[in-house]
Amino acid sequence: MAVDLIAVDFEPMAARVEVAAGSSVMDAARLAGVGIASTCGGEGSCGRCRVTLLGPDLPAPSEADLRFLSPAEIGMGQRLACRTPVTAERRVHVPTASLVTGQRLQLDGPPSHVPVDAAVRAFEVEAEPPSLIDPRSDLDRVLSALDAAGVPGLAADPAVVRQLTPLVRRTGWRVAAYVRDRDIVGFEAPGRSAVGLAVDLGTTKIAGYLVDLATGDVLAAEGLLNPQISRGEDVIARLAHAARDSAGAEDLARTVRAGLDGLAGSLAATAGAARDQIADAVIVGNTAMHHLLLGLPVRQLALAPFVAAASGPLDVRAADLGLALAPDCRIHFLPCIGGFVGADATAMVIATDLDRLDRVALGIDIGTNTEIVLRRPGVDGLVAASCASGPAFEGGHIRDGMRAGDGAIERVRLDGPAPEVEVIGGVAPLGICGSGVVDAVAELRRTGCIDHRGRFVADAPGVSRGDAGALQFDLVGAARSGTGREIAITQGDVREIQLAKGAIAAGIGILLDATQTPPEAVTEVIVAGAFGTYLDLDSALAIGLLPRLSNARCVQVGNAAGTGARSALLSLRERERARGVARHASYLDLTSYEDFHRRFAHSMLFDRPVTRSQ
Amino acid sequence: MAVDLIAVDFEPMAARVEVAAGSSVMDAARLAGVGIASTCGGEGSCGRCRVTLLGPDLPAPSEADLRFLSPAEIGMGQRLACRTPVTAERRVHVPTASLVTGQRLQLDGPPSHVPVDAAVRAFEVEAEPPSLIDPRSDLDRVLSALDAAGVPGLAADPAVVRQLTPLVRRTGWRVAAYVRDRDIVGFEAPGRSAVGLAVDLGTTKIAGYLVDLATGDVLAAEGLLNPQISRGEDVIARLAHAARDSAGAEDLARTVRAGLDGLAGSLAATAGAARDQIADAVIVGNTAMHHLLLGLPVRQLALAPFVAAASGPLDVRAADLGLALAPDCRIHFLPCIGGFVGADATAMVIATDLDRLDRVALGIDIGTNTEIVLRRPGVDGLVAASCASGPAFEGGHIRDGMRAGDGAIERVRLDGPAPEVEVIGGVAPLGICGSGVVDAVAELRRTGCIDHRGRFVADAPGVSRGDAGALQFDLVGAARSGTGREIAITQGDVREIQLAKGAIAAGIGILLDATQTPPEAVTEVIVAGAFGTYLDLDSALAIGLLPRLSNARCVQVGNAAGTGARSALLSLRERERARGVARHASYLDLTSYEDFHRRFAHSMLFDRPVTRSQ
Repeated sequence: MAVDLIAVDFEPMAARVEVAAGSSVMDAARLAGVGIASTCGGEGSCGRCRVTLLGPDLPAPSEADLRFLSPAEIGMGQRLACRTPVTAERRVHVPTASLVTGQRLQLDGPPSHVPVDAAVRAFEVEAEPPSLIDPRSDLDRVLSALDAAGVPGLAADPAVVRQLTPLVRRTGWRVAAYVRDRDIVGFEAPGRSAVGLAVDLGTTKIAGYLVDLATGDVLAAEGLLNPQISRGEDVIARLAHAARDSAGAEDLARTVRAGLDGLAGSLAATAGAARDQIADAVIVGNTAMHHLLLGLPVRQLALAPFVAAASGPLDVRAADLGLALAPDCRIHFLPCIGGFVGADATAMVIATDLDRLDRVALGIDIGTNTEIVLRRPGVDGLVAASCASGPAFEGGHIRDGMRAGDGAIERVRLDGPAPEVEVIGGVAPLGICGSGVVDAVAELRRTGCIDHRGRFVADAPGVSRGDAGALQFDLVGAARSGTGREIAITQGDVREIQLAKGAIAAGIGILLDATQTPPEAVTEVIVAGAFGTYLDLDSALAIGLLPRLSNARCVQVGNAAGTGARSALLSLRERERARGVARHASYLDLTSYEDFHRRFAHSMLFDRPVTRSQ
Repeated sequence: MAVDLIAVDFEPMAARVEVAAGSSVMDAARLAGVGIASTCGGEGSCGRCRVTLLGPDLPAPSEADLRFLSPAEIGMGQRLACRTPVTAERRVHVPTASLVTGQRLQLDGPPSHVPVDAAVRAFEVEAEPPSLIDPRSDLDRVLSALDAAGVPGLAADPAVVRQLTPLVRRTGWRVAAYVRDRDIVGFEAPGRSAVGLAVDLGTTKIAGYLVDLATGDVLAAEGLLNPQISRGEDVIARLAHAARDSAGAEDLARTVRAGLDGLAGSLAATAGAARDQIADAVIVGNTAMHHLLLGLPVRQLALAPFVAAASGPLDVRAADLGLALAPDCRIHFLPCIGGFVGADATAMVIATDLDRLDRVALGIDIGTNTEIVLRRPGVDGLVAASCASGPAFEGGHIRDGMRAGDGAIERVRLDGPAPEVEVIGGVAPLGICGSGVVDAVAELRRTGCIDHRGRFVADAPGVSRGDAGALQFDLVGAARSGTGREIAITQGDVREIQLAKGAIAAGIGILLDATQTPPEAVTEVIVAGAFGTYLDLDSALAIGLLPRLSNARCVQVGNAAGTGARSALLSLRERERARGVARHASYLDLTSYEDFHRRFAHSMLFDRPVTRSQ
């Protein structure tokens, strides 16, 4: 019955954990709460999870170690955490560059201006204490008091009654009841207002907000990385993990639910509220995130025709998803539109009023999965598409890529004799984040370092050959970087950006073509999402990530999905509006469009208008 | 990390289990699924759980062993299972007399004649399969088909969607949907009808019925002992177990939930139905059983003024109670009346039409907890009381008592030279059940063996002195019994019956007095419950268990609570009626009645009319 456990100490965070022999160092880190970066989900194919094993008796390097690490690095104890089994008690040093902490998580979005019309309202009443001549039940006496206060005919789940019995005996029979329709979702001591949780559940990032349900005030906001990242960086990798077996799906559900529960607790602590005060919640996310959180089947979602198990609005008990909020708190899921275009797109639409604009407009939520929504006034509804833009804009699949946090290069200019870079946090650069890569590629193209096909020009100034002989462009030399190694843009990096921007540009082009919308008819491009906020629009237009539309102005609105979630949290009318948006939006499957592959290939080139056919 | 486990083999059932050292033999039996009788909840105070330890190295006898077992029995390895720790691998022989199996569980009651108007209905539809031009979600396509079939505006929980996605791909998009209000509670293959589960959850016995929700036909019926019995035989012992700490309440909830889940599975198997077809359920029980199952707080229920946490009708998800039925199946709990007078009394009222009788009548559901309901036509509502009659009528606290199963003496006559006994199953007698004890005491009083105070008359024929010198009356000699020991009625047994019948008689008397109802006004006494069915009415009247009411006829109706549960399962109108019954019934707390103790003491005597004051 005994299991041999081996202790692992992580430095410099001083986290200790015991794991079964044979677990990977990555598993141990996860258990210890140490966030080691990974973009491949522990497959040994991204090389991101470098750690240094301290002490003697180093294990033999894995095949992946030999691929990603130099012999010198291997000799110094460096290994990939995901490919290294724990075989003996050991200290492990995690370099800053391998940590997922210190991320810049963009929370701001347009403010929610909806009049408050929340699903849950709080009522404070005082009930009669029991006596021998009035032995009615605890619940009946509180229901009577609520009836007298003008709220008749309520019911309560046993979980709520469990809360009531000790509470009334502590408060002298005075309670605040949180009421949703005809249900009491929870009780609290008088004076404690009902608050709500709004969440934008992204593939990479989660943004959470705690809101006062009576006033609409934002009491706390917080972001975290989606903890599913270690099981695959993009939607397809996650679905593959879930499809592997039922344990995979359960693992993903458990992982994100734990993350959300922790987020709720942290937001409540920040706001000085009890978890029990969280009496309503709204979560939005793309269809895959939605299904994985809810534990819905995803096999059919990963294959054409990409059918969701359920896409309409859902009300799910928070407790069913492992969230400890008010005992009968429901989580409202806004409706998904179709394919991978999920409730985050619906939320973005209501936050930006895209459905009400009196001009032709595009809403683009750029992320690991990018949603594009076209508004054509006078034509009923919206048309939406999604493209797998991949994690390049989040720093994924980029050799020196990292997410937008301290040490990330976020701006690049190649005007002077040496590259000029701006680094988040003003520290020595550790890598480059999405907006920096877009800048860099735009500048490389402008200065002629890469040609219109994205190939490095060997004799252009600054272009050199890296270790393996491939061409690259060094942004920061080894001496100035915080990693002891140069930070460069490689030929592979340029290709990744071409794939990502090609997917988005092709998506926009096909969406306009398929709806017979002339590019010049578009008057507004609304860029939403965390990456979209920090993006340099000129660079984005220069590399063709955003289309050059002669009559369109471009606006960056920040996390519109989060704003839409807050609006739906505060207003039943907005939930109803979202239902209408999803019902009347049509979904366009880009991959089934006959011209897709040609358009995609052309869109990967530089300096070619996205809507021009060859 | 390793835990030492010790194997225990139970004979003759050949059940083997491994338990941690220090667990009791009773714990091991419970884990092995061997039902060892116990009426004290493992406190070593009932002496019922005798087993024989086989092999060498017998443990020293406990204090309880010394109290209940003779030195010879101890020498032969007999011990009380609840007081004997497992210290070494060992075989344990469980004698038939110590087993709780082979019980007679009375399931029959008056038939339910209500017109079917069930809360859940089944609809069969065929949905359109998805295609590239119609990628709506699985749920949306089934909802469309239901809409077209005249059932619009439905919703489904994620648990139900989880069931749908694989199902439609197996059945070619044809499904049966079980619909409750606007919710789909489950899907099944077409052709599978919706069935419902009705349960009468007694302190001692559980009766379950599986019913076709379209026709009302009873498809299967089954009884089992409430598995909480090993944690205390009566309501007070259970509440004490629950109040000990939160683990006690959780243990009781888990135990009865597992029993109910097993019952559902067994009923479904008998009826040839899938568990997923069980789309609705109704459970009735006294207030303590109701609270312990639901996990509601009980501390305040055990103390005056005996306040329930919740007593109104409740709809609770079956999954929340650990019952694997249709994924979103709800369990409807009929309302409790007050104090310990629970939903079983409400169900008894609707099954017997007590609320509609045009004459003064008493409904009495005799069990470990006895409910008494008085109907007075022309006066609004009913008046209900409950008495702790204890387990004596179930064979508890009776030296040779056992539940009504094979080997139990159920009838006694003292007309001839030797006592005449009837034994259930026609086997050698092992003990005496409730109806046998009532018979025996009635006969002992009739023949002058006990006086009106219940004391044995030392020189009466058949009265002898037992081992400890106390007077007793042998019904069966050691030579003829199946246990090798005489089966007798002891002075203590007579006292237990006096306590039990005294409680009921005092309850009836106080109820009539408090409502100013003259005894002669009562025209009908309806005796319900399992024990009440087998009871000899003449004996019951002779000992004063039932009152001699000059104008009343007495009817035995069997398990009326079970019938009421079935009626509520089949009819929303009956649920509404039950709500009205509970709302308009008033609860009378007998113990707070000033005359209670005097009445109780007087009612313990024999040959005294219960309504006469001294």
